[in-house]
Amino acid sequence: MTTPHGVVQTPAFMPVGTRGAVKAITGRDLDDLGAEIILGNTYHLYLKPGDGLIARCGGLHKFIGWDHPILTDSGGYQVFSLAAMRRIEEQGSEFRSHIDGSLHMLTPERAVDIQAQLGSDIAMVLDECIGTVPADPKGGSVRAAMERSVRWAERGRRRFIQLRDDPQSSPDVMVTNPGQAQFGIIQGGIELGLRAESVQRTVDIGFEAYAIGGLSVGEPVDLMYDVVSHTAPMLPDDRPRYLMGTGMPDDLIECVARGIDLFDCVLPTRNGRNGQLLTRRGPLVIKNARYAEDMSPPDPDCGCYTCRHFSRAYLRHLFVVGEMTAATLNSLHNLHFYLDTMRRIREAIVFGSFEKLRREFHQTFSRRPQN
Amino acid sequence: MTTPHGVVQTPAFMPVGTRGAVKAITGRDLDDLGAEIILGNTYHLYLKPGDGLIARCGGLHKFIGWDHPILTDSGGYQVFSLAAMRRIEEQGSEFRSHIDGSLHMLTPERAVDIQAQLGSDIAMVLDECIGTVPADPKGGSVRAAMERSVRWAERGRRRFIQLRDDPQSSPDVMVTNPGQAQFGIIQGGIELGLRAESVQRTVDIGFEAYAIGGLSVGEPVDLMYDVVSHTAPMLPDDRPRYLMGTGMPDDLIECVARGIDLFDCVLPTRNGRNGQLLTRRGPLVIKNARYAEDMSPPDPDCGCYTCRHFSRAYLRHLFVVGEMTAATLNSLHNLHFYLDTMRRIREAIVFGSFEKLRREFHQTFSRRPQN
Repeated sequence: MTTPHGVVQTPAFMPVGTRGAVKAITGRDLDDLGAEIILGNTYHLYLKPGDGLIARCGGLHKFIGWDHPILTDSGGYQVFSLAAMRRIEEQGSEFRSHIDGSLHMLTPERAVDIQAQLGSDIAMVLDECIGTVPADPKGGSVRAAMERSVRWAERGRRRFIQLRDDPQSSPDVMVTNPGQAQFGIIQGGIELGLRAESVQRTVDIGFEAYAIGGLSVGEPVDLMYDVVSHTAPMLPDDRPRYLMGTGMPDDLIECVARGIDLFDCVLPTRNGRNGQLLTRRGPLVIKNARYAEDMSPPDPDCGCYTCRHFSRAYLRHLFVVGEMTAATLNSLHNLHFYLDTMRRIREAIVFGSFEKLRREFHQTFSRRPQN
Repeated sequence: MTTPHGVVQTPAFMPVGTRGAVKAITGRDLDDLGAEIILGNTYHLYLKPGDGLIARCGGLHKFIGWDHPILTDSGGYQVFSLAAMRRIEEQGSEFRSHIDGSLHMLTPERAVDIQAQLGSDIAMVLDECIGTVPADPKGGSVRAAMERSVRWAERGRRRFIQLRDDPQSSPDVMVTNPGQAQFGIIQGGIELGLRAESVQRTVDIGFEAYAIGGLSVGEPVDLMYDVVSHTAPMLPDDRPRYLMGTGMPDDLIECVARGIDLFDCVLPTRNGRNGQLLTRRGPLVIKNARYAEDMSPPDPDCGCYTCRHFSRAYLRHLFVVGEMTAATLNSLHNLHFYLDTMRRIREAIVFGSFEKLRREFHQTFSRRPQN
């Protein structure tokens, strides 16, 4: 995948840098881990420090000192999941900031403008996010949200094209990355028919590439896999396919098998901060007393900085006493595991051994914490 | 200064790794910064994870994955400043843990045993710490504390020699670093006569080297300099002289000028976490609104990772939103400034230009925050 800030080998995993930093990790750590692209959250950056300030500072890359590709989401999901209040109508989402309660309006056009000012390499179109509601016979609210997402996609794309073709057209929008791409988002919940319709209507609008949204929001994993199996093959095969917000390590392999090229998830960093280390054998809960004097590395098979230098005993101590370094070392390991899994997947695809890798992965990996 | 884990160029600054980690910093960051020795706090490590556990894990170096020199304090200062309750008698200090209120007894012998189990390269003898009490005509409690410190030094040295000559002599003490050195501590407050007496009696006991304790505890800086000027020259000139817990950047230069070889202080890391960056011009309070869109580095003259890659605007944003990365990047800069100042001091001493460096330093450095 080629972007204005360089090439990304796919399938790829994007570490999440919510507020302009991957939590507890520095840019040189990310370089060292081999991260080729990171994700920034438009909702957070819009609220603080503000897209206008970031634009005046030269755009997000320059502001955060990261010269590699960045993808930004539209802000819609955080409005849905974080805002103190939200009211969704055809025009857009009105919401109150979770920080100070201030009132804001996010429209499809505004989501484009904010991301134009941030200057990410890939902008996401605003969609309507809904929870995992049980499918009713007529697929009521899921259909409505999907259809609204299509209408918002049309408006978002129109605005994007306008700014792309004439970056000076809006005096109050500073376009900081003229080569920005825009991805459309497929909605439709777990209704396969709605997914098909969403694909057709979104692809008809025409984006640089497409994402599958509305999954990994609490549905059973097999259902998620079914929806991906059904949806991904309908998307253009000459464009990367991005599965938003997924997932566990085994999800990466299973969804690559189903045609996905791009992933993001807070899990490696969030679980790292919470003391859960993800390994080829499964999660390791570092605070367990069993590790108090265990001088072996978290994962003996791992080549990350943490596993090469530190023991379970030390990591447990740091976590128990609440040292920030615990978050850093755990997150480094988890991100390495995710990024290394993607490297192994890419290599296996090149050598025609992906199915072998997939089998071997499941033979050792379990979602249950290790004993 | 030669230790079992390598040579330390002096004069040197020791970053403080209170609980087995320099806060918000990894070991490779410390290597990259050129730190040659770090300090660990016996009080904290004794309480959590415990010196017994660390000994069973092979000693502090192995436990924390740091293969360079480590100095540990005696725990006395933290008992004085942190413990929930303390009662000092001739036998030692009885105190309650600030973590769980549990009751403990720190004696001169116990301080030696704990540090023998930690296996630091340099152990400090237990002394009696007192606050900055105004000197009364007869120097009452200051004299009493100094005299008790001498008696404790005798007991601590005796215990140290016993373990050194026969490491198996105490079945309940695992000596994890047979080459450990022990430093004595000069007390006497701001009473020059008491300082002289403390030097004579402590040097008579005979330690590998000596520290000046009981300063940088709130007294005016000029008084601190006077005590150092008076005390340091009385200490053996073939041994490093360690000024405990100092200080501000200009203190480093001023106390080297007065004969000090070794410093430690939490200031670069603590102030970093609090958003204060120390530069050649003085402190920079990063949260100030004036830096919101300031794309210049914290210190244009600085070659540290933070200053080479990040702006005041970004660092302000990270600090204001509370990202952990703020603590890391600020602490990296501050530690670099301290360690680089020591490098410049060593170089200037070699080239005979120390007084020139000292003048130049004071021409730009001010303790008042920059405008």
